[in-house]
Amino acid sequence: MIVVMKPGATPAQVQHMVKQVEALGLKAHVIVGTERTVIAAVGSKRDGNKESLESGPGVAEVVPISAPYKVASRELKPEPSVIVAGSLSVGGAKVGVIAGPCSVETEEQILSCAQAVKKAGATALRGGAFKPRTSPYSFQGLKEDGLKMLAAARDATGLAVVTEVVASEDVDLVSKYADVLQIGARNMQNYRLLEAVGRSPRAVLLKRGPSATIEELLLAAEYILDGGNPNVMLCERGIRTFESHTRFTLPLATVPYLQKKTHLPVVVDPSHGTGHSYLVAAMCTAGIAAGADGLIVEVHPDPEHALSDGYQTLNFSEFEEVMARCRRVAAAMDKVM
Amino acid sequence: MIVVMKPGATPAQVQHMVKQVEALGLKAHVIVGTERTVIAAVGSKRDGNKESLESGPGVAEVVPISAPYKVASRELKPEPSVIVAGSLSVGGAKVGVIAGPCSVETEEQILSCAQAVKKAGATALRGGAFKPRTSPYSFQGLKEDGLKMLAAARDATGLAVVTEVVASEDVDLVSKYADVLQIGARNMQNYRLLEAVGRSPRAVLLKRGPSATIEELLLAAEYILDGGNPNVMLCERGIRTFESHTRFTLPLATVPYLQKKTHLPVVVDPSHGTGHSYLVAAMCTAGIAAGADGLIVEVHPDPEHALSDGYQTLNFSEFEEVMARCRRVAAAMDKVM
Amino acid sequence: MIVVMKPGATPAQVQHMVKQVEALGLKAHVIVGTERTVIAAVGSKRDGNKESLESGPGVAEVVPISAPYKVASRELKPEPSVIVAGSLSVGGAKVGVIAGPCSVETEEQILSCAQAVKKAGATALRGGAFKPRTSPYSFQGLKEDGLKMLAAARDATGLAVVTEVVASEDVDLVSKYADVLQIGARNMQNYRLLEAVGRSPRAVLLKRGPSATIEELLLAAEYILDGGNPNVMLCERGIRTFESHTRFTLPLATVPYLQKKTHLPVVVDPSHGTGHSYLVAAMCTAGIAAGADGLIVEVHPDPEHALSDGYQTLNFSEFEEVMARCRRVAAAMDKVM
Amino acid sequence: MIVVMKPGATPAQVQHMVKQVEALGLKAHVIVGTERTVIAAVGSKRDGNKESLESGPGVAEVVPISAPYKVASRELKPEPSVIVAGSLSVGGAKVGVIAGPCSVETEEQILSCAQAVKKAGATALRGGAFKPRTSPYSFQGLKEDGLKMLAAARDATGLAVVTEVVASEDVDLVSKYADVLQIGARNMQNYRLLEAVGRSPRAVLLKRGPSATIEELLLAAEYILDGGNPNVMLCERGIRTFESHTRFTLPLATVPYLQKKTHLPVVVDPSHGTGHSYLVAAMCTAGIAAGADGLIVEVHPDPEHALSDGYQTLNFSEFEEVMARCRRVAAAMDKVM
Repeated sequence: MIVVMKPGATPAQVQHMVKQVEALGLKAHVIVGTERTVIAAVGSKRDGNKESLESGPGVAEVVPISAPYKVASRELKPEPSVIVAGSLSVGGAKVGVIAGPCSVETEEQILSCAQAVKKAGATALRGGAFKPRTSPYSFQGLKEDGLKMLAAARDATGLAVVTEVVASEDVDLVSKYADVLQIGARNMQNYRLLEAVGRSPRAVLLKRGPSATIEELLLAAEYILDGGNPNVMLCERGIRTFESHTRFTLPLATVPYLQKKTHLPVVVDPSHGTGHSYLVAAMCTAGIAAGADGLIVEVHPDPEHALSDGYQTLNFSEFEEVMARCRRVAAAMDKVM
Repeated sequence: MIVVMKPGATPAQVQHMVKQVEALGLKAHVIVGTERTVIAAVGSKRDGNKESLESGPGVAEVVPISAPYKVASRELKPEPSVIVAGSLSVGGAKVGVIAGPCSVETEEQILSCAQAVKKAGATALRGGAFKPRTSPYSFQGLKEDGLKMLAAARDATGLAVVTEVVASEDVDLVSKYADVLQIGARNMQNYRLLEAVGRSPRAVLLKRGPSATIEELLLAAEYILDGGNPNVMLCERGIRTFESHTRFTLPLATVPYLQKKTHLPVVVDPSHGTGHSYLVAAMCTAGIAAGADGLIVEVHPDPEHALSDGYQTLNFSEFEEVMARCRRVAAAMDKVM
Repeated sequence: MIVVMKPGATPAQVQHMVKQVEALGLKAHVIVGTERTVIAAVGSKRDGNKESLESGPGVAEVVPISAPYKVASRELKPEPSVIVAGSLSVGGAKVGVIAGPCSVETEEQILSCAQAVKKAGATALRGGAFKPRTSPYSFQGLKEDGLKMLAAARDATGLAVVTEVVASEDVDLVSKYADVLQIGARNMQNYRLLEAVGRSPRAVLLKRGPSATIEELLLAAEYILDGGNPNVMLCERGIRTFESHTRFTLPLATVPYLQKKTHLPVVVDPSHGTGHSYLVAAMCTAGIAAGADGLIVEVHPDPEHALSDGYQTLNFSEFEEVMARCRRVAAAMDKVM
Repeated sequence: MIVVMKPGATPAQVQHMVKQVEALGLKAHVIVGTERTVIAAVGSKRDGNKESLESGPGVAEVVPISAPYKVASRELKPEPSVIVAGSLSVGGAKVGVIAGPCSVETEEQILSCAQAVKKAGATALRGGAFKPRTSPYSFQGLKEDGLKMLAAARDATGLAVVTEVVASEDVDLVSKYADVLQIGARNMQNYRLLEAVGRSPRAVLLKRGPSATIEELLLAAEYILDGGNPNVMLCERGIRTFESHTRFTLPLATVPYLQKKTHLPVVVDPSHGTGHSYLVAAMCTAGIAAGADGLIVEVHPDPEHALSDGYQTLNFSEFEEVMARCRRVAAAMDKVM
């Protein structure tokens, strides 16, 4: 951390701040410049409290240097992590593909989806049973009935099941049926829920919140890792910007940036990331060419009649075509899919 | 809702979409323009499903017309709501002021805060006992001990207590001690929590998420109202933008815009909205001059040593000065403070 | 500037970077931490080249410390500047008010506007003769004819004329008729134009670009100041964010933040800042309560038939009402209006 | 355009608005819903004035339906345009690659760059002679001397020259030396400049402004096309968002979205789009896999000592490696590079 003093800060103010830095267990180096003095604070402690120094006398600003996350950091574990959950493997040379409908609607729907996406090359099945919906008047999911349908589809196809959990009290129930617990974007900073999945034996797919910084995403992962669960996949699903021609803006530079900062694998969600089915194919290939470790894609037998998210969902033949193209791009990236 | 067809959409495609509109229980009006055809769909149903029409054949886009919230809408209840919770009244001619520390730290701290902010003119006490923190390594709050300290401060000063609840399973506990349940920005779309406070007898202060649209904020309020709790105050606390000289960007036009769309009162949070104590005073007066029904301000006896958010916190004498100025601006706006 | 080395950077890499820092004419202080080494580079040179160090071997990132602007800086000139141009005075205890139509349309229109806004209390007249328009098919302004009409309105009312200049080759022409040259938001980084107005004897109203940082705004001002023209007013007119219920998001914390960083006065534009006439009144009062040195407001005799920007324009009686309220808020802020 | 009336708008207000719509030369269809009335206005006129209707009596909002650009529209010209300028061909099956330094610095530098990027597979040379710089104290370019060095490098290698023009008065001069005139992001809405390049015989590379919507970008292109120059390439170079780990956020969904809306080819700039050389390679491959018609990449013999933008610039061997990978991805996309 660097404490930047205002021009004209008095020696007493500088001395005061040096004591504050030392009170945090850090070592203070005072550097007197021609215009202003800065105090470099070094040490191994990382915590969220340091910014309080900014209200100190004569302080212009406080500039953090170390990232506040530890276990997620690539500095700590240089080799990339590979997460395996049933048929799904994400990380390393293999690109995992999670596909299926936004919501589980009926037994036939989810089973036909599972068979179709498996045939096209997907390695896991997605489907929502607990649906967080912006409006209280929208379809909220089939809950445990939906989970049972997912498990049945897994029994029939062998595909690992990825499904969302929206509250800490549901983690045990969802863990009974699912292979991977998805934390949705709206819950990325629901810390009680992060702590609960941190205690679960299931792998976790943690989606980036639409206005979360990368540091906040990694600190959310840190909650899960710190809770004892090492199997965390990160998911870029688009951020909120001024752009309105897409539902969210999909920032694919997140992929190489995360891969530099963390050992956790990175999955891209082109369905939410664009919000329009006609943009999904290009963002699937672009995601792989950006180096993504996996994709998660919404697929439905009849998107026009889907109970949720139909406008961003591929039908079976569109998905098959996308997968064929993705395999060629993955090969060009020396990846297997 | 307006379904805009592509130029060149065939009559069969238009006919298909008319049937889809009617299947949603709406009436379809086909308007043939010189370049394209649009279908106006009218009716009283409001739901979140309509966008699925966008994946229909020949459709260019779907433009919603009605806002999807109902109970929160000013169209439904034209007169503004006044929310009263103990000493706090928000809405109408009176400006409510909620002040206190970010976190409850000790009995002395919270009691001295309560006395100081009351003396300066605050009408409620804030203080966090359950703290959602970005990092798992930061101070997480005193939990029930903190709630007890808040209740003791209320007993001593008569100030209503406003404090955050972070999980549905804590709602009963927090309701035992608090007058107003605060839903933090990160939990604005934690629907399980919204449903739980919807069943509580306590008033609710609902903070806007940093990337939530106004429509999403009102739909979050709708969850609480729909659950049976009519006492909802909305809080603008800043949004995430490209600006980095402030922690968030405080968009004060939210105040008159919300007042046009909803009858619920609007509170402004200049502490989180700026993230720097030297900007708080100006945003307090500006908030009132924008027409805010209330303010929520972080105040601490010694911000430099606060366990959280010290950089955006006023000390007692700063707060007193801010309140004196605010009273003059409120009078200029024909409000009482 | 702080050069942060990666954990594991070699002594040779650190030594290499020290030499690079010294080659820039700065002094290098090496601070060896437990996890990483940082190099603090101090000196009085400010230039835009330093970030190139980031591509050096073993470098994690480069963190700037000093702001790169000089003449605009409050560190250099602690007392606020007051800019006077004819009847307009901005800065200090007086709030200047610039009002008038988006575009000059006819002699009668601009004259009636000038008379109406003067009567309501405005101290300068705005009106566009050269109009930068998003679409090539929109009305582009009356050009020199419009300038003549503005000058005639000044002759009739005594109000100073504020009007936009869009190209360096027009600066002399516009300077002939105008008291204040406005640089529009789209041209904030049109450096050739900034240099040209830097050589003009007229005062300049420099609008912030919709995605410009405060540092970029101050560096744009620096171009004008560095060119020899000290009479620069800054204007906050809204930034582009994810919000779509307003045309732009008006971040009023810009006002106290700028006043801390620069001696130049700050004007707020609630018309462009909201894009809806029903939000303008609240943002005028809020702007003054945020401490603004001036307002610029769009006023037209018949907004519904304005050739541009009618949706964000006040009519005469609305403006009169706004001004009456603003005077009361200004008084509460110990300002004169 | 759809004029949405407020609930409770009177028949007289509706009638008034019908007349306003007709006064714009459009046909009005009144649709009476259960909650509100909407007026659909159809016709072939496209102009920027319609929003003024929003200030009409009883109007809730005005929703545009037709895009305001014409000549750039894919509706008008369904087949994609291929732009050829000397050795550079962009559009169709071939991916063009423009590479070279941010600034032309010396004859040796630009010549060695030209030879290196040609050898690696680039089809055009970039290099700035007129440099728009955020700070007046930064290096501003070699101006005509730089143009001459670029022309000499073209003579030596056969590579087409792409270089920026920053002011209308320079268009003739730059056109003398360059094959493609680049309009920088800061000048995307410098309409005088757009008109000037619209009259030039040279092709134009138009960069998207960092906060420009796609509609604004296409309207900027429309200025050039409308001026008589059909050879316009669009360039996505990143937008300004809350993300700070990259210089800009590179939204690659722009590529397929633009290709749906316009016939003009789309070039991606991963150097400005990320601002960090270690992210450029992944965004080059991702750009191609998103379907881009071209790339523009900053390359310098010694990025650490570049006079500008060194932190986002590749050296020769990095660029060679990137190109080798890009060729494989292009082949996987059935493109030639």
